[in-house]
Amino acid sequence: MEYVFSDRMKNMGGNAIREIFKLLSRPDMISFAGGFPTASLLPCGEVGKIASDLMNSDRAKEILQYGATEGYAPLRRRIAAFVSRYGIEGAGEENVRIVSGGQQTIDLMCKCFVNDGDVVLVEDPTYLASLHILRTYRGKAVGVRSGEDGLDLDDLEQKIKAFKPKMLYCVPTFSNPTGRTYSLAVRKAIAELTAKYGVMVLEDDPYSEIRFCGERVPSIKSFDKCGNVVFTASFSKTISPGLRVGYCVGDPAVMAKLTIGKQAVDVHTSMLSQAIVEEYFARGLFDKVLSRSIPVYKEKKDAMHAAIERYMPEEFSSTDPFGGLFIWGGFAEKSGIDTACAFAGACERGVAYVSGETFFADGKDRRHLRLNYSAASPEQIERGIKILADYFKELIK
Amino acid sequence: MEYVFSDRMKNMGGNAIREIFKLLSRPDMISFAGGFPTASLLPCGEVGKIASDLMNSDRAKEILQYGATEGYAPLRRRIAAFVSRYGIEGAGEENVRIVSGGQQTIDLMCKCFVNDGDVVLVEDPTYLASLHILRTYRGKAVGVRSGEDGLDLDDLEQKIKAFKPKMLYCVPTFSNPTGRTYSLAVRKAIAELTAKYGVMVLEDDPYSEIRFCGERVPSIKSFDKCGNVVFTASFSKTISPGLRVGYCVGDPAVMAKLTIGKQAVDVHTSMLSQAIVEEYFARGLFDKVLSRSIPVYKEKKDAMHAAIERYMPEEFSSTDPFGGLFIWGGFAEKSGIDTACAFAGACERGVAYVSGETFFADGKDRRHLRLNYSAASPEQIERGIKILADYFKELIK
Repeated sequence: MEYVFSDRMKNMGGNAIREIFKLLSRPDMISFAGGFPTASLLPCGEVGKIASDLMNSDRAKEILQYGATEGYAPLRRRIAAFVSRYGIEGAGEENVRIVSGGQQTIDLMCKCFVNDGDVVLVEDPTYLASLHILRTYRGKAVGVRSGEDGLDLDDLEQKIKAFKPKMLYCVPTFSNPTGRTYSLAVRKAIAELTAKYGVMVLEDDPYSEIRFCGERVPSIKSFDKCGNVVFTASFSKTISPGLRVGYCVGDPAVMAKLTIGKQAVDVHTSMLSQAIVEEYFARGLFDKVLSRSIPVYKEKKDAMHAAIERYMPEEFSSTDPFGGLFIWGGFAEKSGIDTACAFAGACERGVAYVSGETFFADGKDRRHLRLNYSAASPEQIERGIKILADYFKELIK
Repeated sequence: MEYVFSDRMKNMGGNAIREIFKLLSRPDMISFAGGFPTASLLPCGEVGKIASDLMNSDRAKEILQYGATEGYAPLRRRIAAFVSRYGIEGAGEENVRIVSGGQQTIDLMCKCFVNDGDVVLVEDPTYLASLHILRTYRGKAVGVRSGEDGLDLDDLEQKIKAFKPKMLYCVPTFSNPTGRTYSLAVRKAIAELTAKYGVMVLEDDPYSEIRFCGERVPSIKSFDKCGNVVFTASFSKTISPGLRVGYCVGDPAVMAKLTIGKQAVDVHTSMLSQAIVEEYFARGLFDKVLSRSIPVYKEKKDAMHAAIERYMPEEFSSTDPFGGLFIWGGFAEKSGIDTACAFAGACERGVAYVSGETFFADGKDRRHLRLNYSAASPEQIERGIKILADYFKELIK
């Protein structure tokens, strides 16, 4: 049969990174492509003990039964208190929803706010899945320039005026892909500007717990006075991505609409996963896993940064992030390097990265690449960067 | 802030049944409203042991890591073989996808096939969430008449010609809400008719493992010669709904498109939930849980059927299903009963049901109600039906 797919899906391919994963089946491949947490940090023993204890407790039947779309109430209450560490004060259960990974919040926000042809502003470059999701709702991504301190506020205001966007999507702390963090002043200004023009903000924060140095900066949500900001985060980078547990915090009216959207999609997030995360907090394990994880990630980041300094050609410059999972690099125009074209050759040499164009709203960038340091070992990182450096030097010649 | 929600969501309320759940907080309420499996049947001990064993096995890190959107490969392989019990032969991993509950397949099929204004045919009455989901894609549900043997084939063909639908959605075995099962002849004819006119079929089968008597009838999918039928089922009614694990089986091209749709929504289904279900099968526990569950459900169904016969007024008639979780009943026109209006009064008397209008494409029915027998005990069933019967007799007077 000749399938006639819907207009929203007919030209949709897979998200570039997940397609790359399939190419990475070579066992000796060094992958800087994904955003996988370090496997040795996954708390298997703790999760096994918790799951077993939960199933032997008086909560067992509740956990295996249907749950509320809003999320497991004890976890919602815990998160309402937890988000004070992001400067979000006074949140209650009614402000919190559990989602099946933070990415589900992006999907639900687009579902609830974006009509065909509506504009969503994104940082240029941004998390590529947000661009992918927006396309399934037939929205249009428009990139906002950004620099060391975060979004360019003039460009943001101009684009709000020009495009009347429904929403701004951003990752202000250890951004994916750049690893950069918005300054306090930029965060305040984003909250004020978007409130002034009635633009929703989706503040995505998957990485801020993986901080190597510097101080926490309060979230954009913490400066929200009119309820236009939704904050989302997940436990994928701290506890386990396989459990698929994230959350969002926002105005109760918006949360209620997202809940209706989620009800249709998956009824609720796995109760067992939610209860495991709740119990993980109850046992005080969350801060412990962070203190185990952060030094490991920092060592890997340092190894990658040092290898870049040592091996990469002078035409290459890159970020040195204070946290998160990624280094973002780019070649000078004069180098002639096209990171998208170079990708296949790098894979042949046994190293994968993600080329820059997938992170830009207009998909035109050819100079950048994103390098993940959490999946490979420090030795693999050193070796992989050397291979990439030799390859790019060859290409530049 | 005044929120401007998307057109698709702006008039969406919660699904009626999930809203009812919130009314059921009275501890003495007897609920015939939901479709919850019997709590005492949930295999807490087995799941706890399996989770603990998995987390102590060499698969632990894979299970807590990101997984493939397509699903956990060992579970996909197991299901490819398992579906031969529905007459689906020769399925391979490429035909199978894991979803976060069977309902996710409905969402993904609508996402991938339904444009604004497109028609989806449904049995009248049908599973209410399918109507709810379709509305989020701005599709239009058109009901097809049905009787003891399933869909009325003349009405089906006429409506295919008249509405050029993208899809037919149906629950052919122990249908929700009627509890009826389509005959073999009707199934074959549905496969042939929809193939002839190029209409996709989504065959939803959450209940067929809960069979009290009679023989299995092969699925509509088993008669699919051109790849237009997608079969979906879940483990919510057999193992646990809280785990959120279902699957679908179809042509690889359709499965690939659904995967792209799912990638955007939740990346993948909880790996821990998937691995638990897989191991549940590996240990031969699935047939054992069925042999524990079926007698319990049969006893409850018998209790409800007997109580209906004993207490309900003669103006009421109902189904006596061979399996599943529901009895569907209706009042004669002359009774003057409006089941939607009567609902609040029934709740005041301590008994909840779902009134019929929510299951019909046009939402106009006022005579029917759906009675679930899996959540309450046989004693509660007897008492609850007596309360309902007395109440309706009062209303008829």
